[in-house]
Amino acid sequence: MSKYKVIAFDADDTLWVNEPYFREAEDQFAKLLSLYETENKIHQELYKVITGNIPLYGYGVKSCILSMIQCATEISNHQLSSETTQKILEIGKDMLTKPIELLPHIKEVLDYLSKKYTLIVLTKGDLLDQEKKLKRSQLLGYFHHVEVMSEKNEQEYQRILNHLDINPQDFLMVGNSLKSDVLPVLKIGADAIHVPFHSVWKFETIAKNALKEHEYKTLTSIINIVDIL
Amino acid sequence: MSKYKVIAFDADDTLWVNEPYFREAEDQFAKLLSLYETENKIHQELYKVITGNIPLYGYGVKSCILSMIQCATEISNHQLSSETTQKILEIGKDMLTKPIELLPHIKEVLDYLSKKYTLIVLTKGDLLDQEKKLKRSQLLGYFHHVEVMSEKNEQEYQRILNHLDINPQDFLMVGNSLKSDVLPVLKIGADAIHVPFHSVWKFETIAKNALKEHEYKTLTSIINIVDIL
Repeated sequence: MSKYKVIAFDADDTLWVNEPYFREAEDQFAKLLSLYETENKIHQELYKVITGNIPLYGYGVKSCILSMIQCATEISNHQLSSETTQKILEIGKDMLTKPIELLPHIKEVLDYLSKKYTLIVLTKGDLLDQEKKLKRSQLLGYFHHVEVMSEKNEQEYQRILNHLDINPQDFLMVGNSLKSDVLPVLKIGADAIHVPFHSVWKFETIAKNALKEHEYKTLTSIINIVDIL
Repeated sequence: MSKYKVIAFDADDTLWVNEPYFREAEDQFAKLLSLYETENKIHQELYKVITGNIPLYGYGVKSCILSMIQCATEISNHQLSSETTQKILEIGKDMLTKPIELLPHIKEVLDYLSKKYTLIVLTKGDLLDQEKKLKRSQLLGYFHHVEVMSEKNEQEYQRILNHLDINPQDFLMVGNSLKSDVLPVLKIGADAIHVPFHSVWKFETIAKNALKEHEYKTLTSIINIVDIL
């Protein structure tokens, strides 16, 4: 399986912890507004607002916070207090300054792979936030190229492979999201390895049969990549 | 002056109108809060909050709106109403869906230059918003590469030139900002053409003597580029 020339890594929840911080932020948000609604209902409404705003705002912390504020004005029947608004802004600033917690074995794996392959990062989200996280992670030295994508779909993967002059057969993507890191990559004729993370955002899930005609490996730990590459 | 291989264009206020929409949004914001303060003071405070948040939020509409909300909670002595908060969110959504207004002669200039040079776009701001504006502009076909940068400084220009395998001597940048499009480009040994736009964000201005040791051309209209390239 060493036919690859370039191996790309997803960042959030593949290299470092991310999703739990969003879940934490949503829990804080639900608590802040719990005088108006059940926390369950607040979570549901927030999900609707966030995903409804993706075409306009895209992914990432700033988009999430703008959607939280919009959702809060609605849930509070337009009685949102200045204090709660400020607390929501603070949730966002906390998220943007969280220390980076690398996932287990990441350095080991990158040390090993970087000696044999060209490594790159393909991540979705906010440009500045992702760049800053990579710098804070101290992993930047392993990667020849970092690309923050506004959407991880077939078209965007193809565009990047063209731009970097990589044949799909020479390319392997490693990530935690079947929807963003596996399915579109397989569809353009490249390979993908799925390394599940315990927490998955509902929006990143796909129908079980969406992948049934495709072949890909699932690893329980990223360290196992060393055995196959 | 036809020694160049690659010509890069800034986007906002070089290819299309942008700054006046930010000024408009700030005027709307100042009016919304005018019961608390003079509009002049509101503009001053907003500028402080926006520029103070750049290291955390970066540039672009979403960053601007988050800073507006923060500024509004402060100016209102923490009495910001839900209604005003919603109106600020609407200012942002309006900005993100504004039709693209190309600057005069842009198509003509790109038509001409694209036959002789490789053209790229180097723009600062929000990833998704800039990508969507380029699509709406219908100019995408002229450009071999588009890069949204989190900051336009020497280091970032050098990184992009390395990545695209371009020698500084072969590279020309065209843009409206002396601070972002001219000075850092001249400092890495490439050339730049300044095409001033009537509205400049205060943050993009530089000291008059910052450029005195450097040589660059200033054009009163982008159409004049055809005479020199």
